[in-house]
Amino acid sequence: MFINDLHDILVDDDLASFGDSLINFVYSIALSVVGGRFRGGRVKNRVLAEALCRCGLRGLLEGRVDVHVKGDAAEALIAYAWLSGRVSLNELVDILVGNISADSIGNFDCEVKAFSALLKHVLVRIFEG
Amino acid sequence: MFINDLHDILVDDDLASFGDSLINFVYSIALSVVGGRFRGGRVKNRVLAEALCRCGLRGLLEGRVDVHVKGDAAEALIAYAWLSGRVSLNELVDILVGNISADSIGNFDCEVKAFSALLKHVLVRIFEG
Repeated sequence: MFINDLHDILVDDDLASFGDSLINFVYSIALSVVGGRFRGGRVKNRVLAEALCRCGLRGLLEGRVDVHVKGDAAEALIAYAWLSGRVSLNELVDILVGNISADSIGNFDCEVKAFSALLKHVLVRIFEG
Repeated sequence: MFINDLHDILVDDDLASFGDSLINFVYSIALSVVGGRFRGGRVKNRVLAEALCRCGLRGLLEGRVDVHVKGDAAEALIAYAWLSGRVSLNELVDILVGNISADSIGNFDCEVKAFSALLKHVLVRIFEG
């Protein structure tokens, strides 16, 4: 995996589209575990966008980069990691559960921290090959 | 599993909320397999509502029953089946893939047929359980 390959993944609209439903599913499981009751959740684009920046991946995106482009890049990266077998659903859920508490559900900073941890983990797994 | 238990599942808002993200994830995988490229999809409430009626489950819902109540009931039932270990993600994906073709993506009748097949399978698994 080279930096150019990583750029191609981050700007892949198909992966981002798929990643949206993957992330919402994983997030829903994590919310249910942490909150103690089943619930669905949708991850906000601005949470993913901020998490992407905190992982130092902003520099790989060129041109007009709004919150949607950055959010899509995070979704694409996580989708790639799961689809290529680098991470399992359980692994993704466990990282979110370890970084979200019942009190912090819906808190922007806490969610950014949780998704930053997720992206960092995914990056390590991708570069481990 | 008795009919009263089934009613309680169908009207469980928590299960429906979780089921929404589960169904969209499973549907996204199926669309990607059938369409030959990764993509995300959201299942329309009226597709799930119609599928629920075709499976004869409408009679278990009382009072005001609009398309959202019926769609939620389908989501709750599928969520229950997966969360209780009656069906696997692969099983759910396989049924959708077997009932959707590349030409029929987005076609209301074809989607209703696919989700009717999914609900019937889930019902069998639940009552076998």
